[in-house]
Amino acid sequence: MAKVTGLEGVVAAETDISLVDGENGHLIYRGFWAKELAITSTFEEVAYLLWYGQLPNTAELEAFKGQWVADRCLPEHVLSLLKLLPRETPLMSVLQTAVSAMSESQYSWPPSVEQALKITAVLPIIVAYRYRLENGLPLIEPLNQLDHAANYLYMLTGVIPEAAHVKALTAYLILGMEHGMNASTFAGRVVSSTQSDLISALTAAIGAMKGPLHGGAPTEVIAMLDAIGNKEQAEDWIRSTLEQGGRLMGFGHRVYKTVDPRAEALRQVTARLSSEDPWFELAIHVEAAAIKLLDEYKPGRRLYTNVEFFAAAIMRAIGLPSALFTPTFSIARVVGWSAHVLEQAAINRIFRPQSVYTGPMPTEQVSK
Amino acid sequence: MAKVTGLEGVVAAETDISLVDGENGHLIYRGFWAKELAITSTFEEVAYLLWYGQLPNTAELEAFKGQWVADRCLPEHVLSLLKLLPRETPLMSVLQTAVSAMSESQYSWPPSVEQALKITAVLPIIVAYRYRLENGLPLIEPLNQLDHAANYLYMLTGVIPEAAHVKALTAYLILGMEHGMNASTFAGRVVSSTQSDLISALTAAIGAMKGPLHGGAPTEVIAMLDAIGNKEQAEDWIRSTLEQGGRLMGFGHRVYKTVDPRAEALRQVTARLSSEDPWFELAIHVEAAAIKLLDEYKPGRRLYTNVEFFAAAIMRAIGLPSALFTPTFSIARVVGWSAHVLEQAAINRIFRPQSVYTGPMPTEQVSK
Repeated sequence: MAKVTGLEGVVAAETDISLVDGENGHLIYRGFWAKELAITSTFEEVAYLLWYGQLPNTAELEAFKGQWVADRCLPEHVLSLLKLLPRETPLMSVLQTAVSAMSESQYSWPPSVEQALKITAVLPIIVAYRYRLENGLPLIEPLNQLDHAANYLYMLTGVIPEAAHVKALTAYLILGMEHGMNASTFAGRVVSSTQSDLISALTAAIGAMKGPLHGGAPTEVIAMLDAIGNKEQAEDWIRSTLEQGGRLMGFGHRVYKTVDPRAEALRQVTARLSSEDPWFELAIHVEAAAIKLLDEYKPGRRLYTNVEFFAAAIMRAIGLPSALFTPTFSIARVVGWSAHVLEQAAINRIFRPQSVYTGPMPTEQVSK
Repeated sequence: MAKVTGLEGVVAAETDISLVDGENGHLIYRGFWAKELAITSTFEEVAYLLWYGQLPNTAELEAFKGQWVADRCLPEHVLSLLKLLPRETPLMSVLQTAVSAMSESQYSWPPSVEQALKITAVLPIIVAYRYRLENGLPLIEPLNQLDHAANYLYMLTGVIPEAAHVKALTAYLILGMEHGMNASTFAGRVVSSTQSDLISALTAAIGAMKGPLHGGAPTEVIAMLDAIGNKEQAEDWIRSTLEQGGRLMGFGHRVYKTVDPRAEALRQVTARLSSEDPWFELAIHVEAAAIKLLDEYKPGRRLYTNVEFFAAAIMRAIGLPSALFTPTFSIARVVGWSAHVLEQAAINRIFRPQSVYTGPMPTEQVSK
């Protein structure tokens, strides 16, 4: 048996949920271009698609959204927990503990769409409540008339969010929902493969997403946009950075060897909304300048804009602080995690790979 | 790429920690026969071995044990959490949430032996406190003079445990510490591979161990021993079960195709102590009768006693209720989990296997 680390290139599962085609820059959710879904659909519609395998008709969507609103309800003991955990506990740790604490008989094996919906509906409440508790602010109750993304922003701020912000955040969240067999999804599937409950699988997935190697947080791009400040200074700033051998943030991706379809979708959304927020306008301008100058300074080595680049502009426009980036990503990815757990439950086979022992052997060759 | 499910036969990592050789019935911990360690060593010594790679000398062991006793300290907010979680929450869910709630800056990346020891020292406190809270009993403080296994029993019962019970439980716990790349250990390594913290990795491992496919709980064997009742009835009971096509519990294992070395070790321990507890005596007697009759009724199909068989006798002798079996197993396995997380940290490479998309393709072949 050959040495393998990281299981690169090893097929861990067949899946009907998504195709991540890095060579061609394709991201497909159950037969639909994720890029188009992000621009044209709501969070609820795409969650329905990922869980049920098809888009809902009008009646199905209405019923689904009704249940969703009804599920915006945090168990009393989880709220107490949010007040109990030490002030310095990072939000991702709080989220992990709070989700684990939701364990109840209604979440027992096997996983179901009903369970997935309940937890997905509650995640933004956990994040928003804890965020406001940390900041000494009064808690904001969910607002039934608002969709998932808008309600999340409302519960964070207490203000009905601007339509452009909701639209951009929704696109970002849809594109964050699912991305094949990444480490957090894989962790969730491994836990679920023992027939453990959905709660445990999602707790593990959150634990994996906490790790800095998982990626997804646009912190460094935001620092860059902040440093650039306004579009007039963009070209000078980028040129000076490249002259000094510095790195531009938000370009290049481990999987995508061509245009990241998520970046393309978010470019379209932010370009369309650029008159409504200066950060959108800045991002569009900086990207164009960066692509031009990267071509000048690193000819032949094409670097493509990644999803974090536009995610940064969106986070900055909305005003989300960096402590909320990975929790917000989790609020999206929980949809994909639970779709994978549902799929894993149907396979019903425990993950039990091999290890190769490289340690010493006993000095006595036969055990007594 | 070929279809793979469950990653059977796929090497996920090289490891210096243990060799599980099912063909030859060997279980080796860092160059030592686990079987011999279980009979001759203490829990603390074997934990030291698994974490540091070598057995401690006298001075090292004294210092290590001193730190261990000092680490028997549950954070105040975790105790509050144990009181807060709903009465009906299963103990394994409580353990998962409580470990997650221990997340603090002292457990941040990278993992260390100091962190592993702290959590290992606290796990029995969590289990014992919650168990007594559930049963409306006053909490028992840890007793410094007692070793790990004895202190666990003491904190459950409030009584200094019998030496024979401590000896047998210690052997069981040592044999439960580590078993290669099982699903819970693997889940922990996947989470840790993102550079997430030890707490998150262990939370995921506990979540995987909760699943009924993970195995390790001797519940069915206990039901069998209870049904047999005493050694005079053993042969009749077994014969009648086999005549009716029934199955004997505690024989056969997925990995071990020959004698399970853990069963052998526990047989030696319980046989030596059989005069001190009727359950030990019964188990030894039932095993002998079962092996004889299995050979008579299923000739040629050799079924070997597995670790659960003797684990059942030990749990029954000690009087642990079945709700405590998997938590007790976790109290042992946390040593192996954390050894693997320490090893994974040195590899420092994210687990990111492939999936093969088997869903539909978009009807429009080119994304807009």
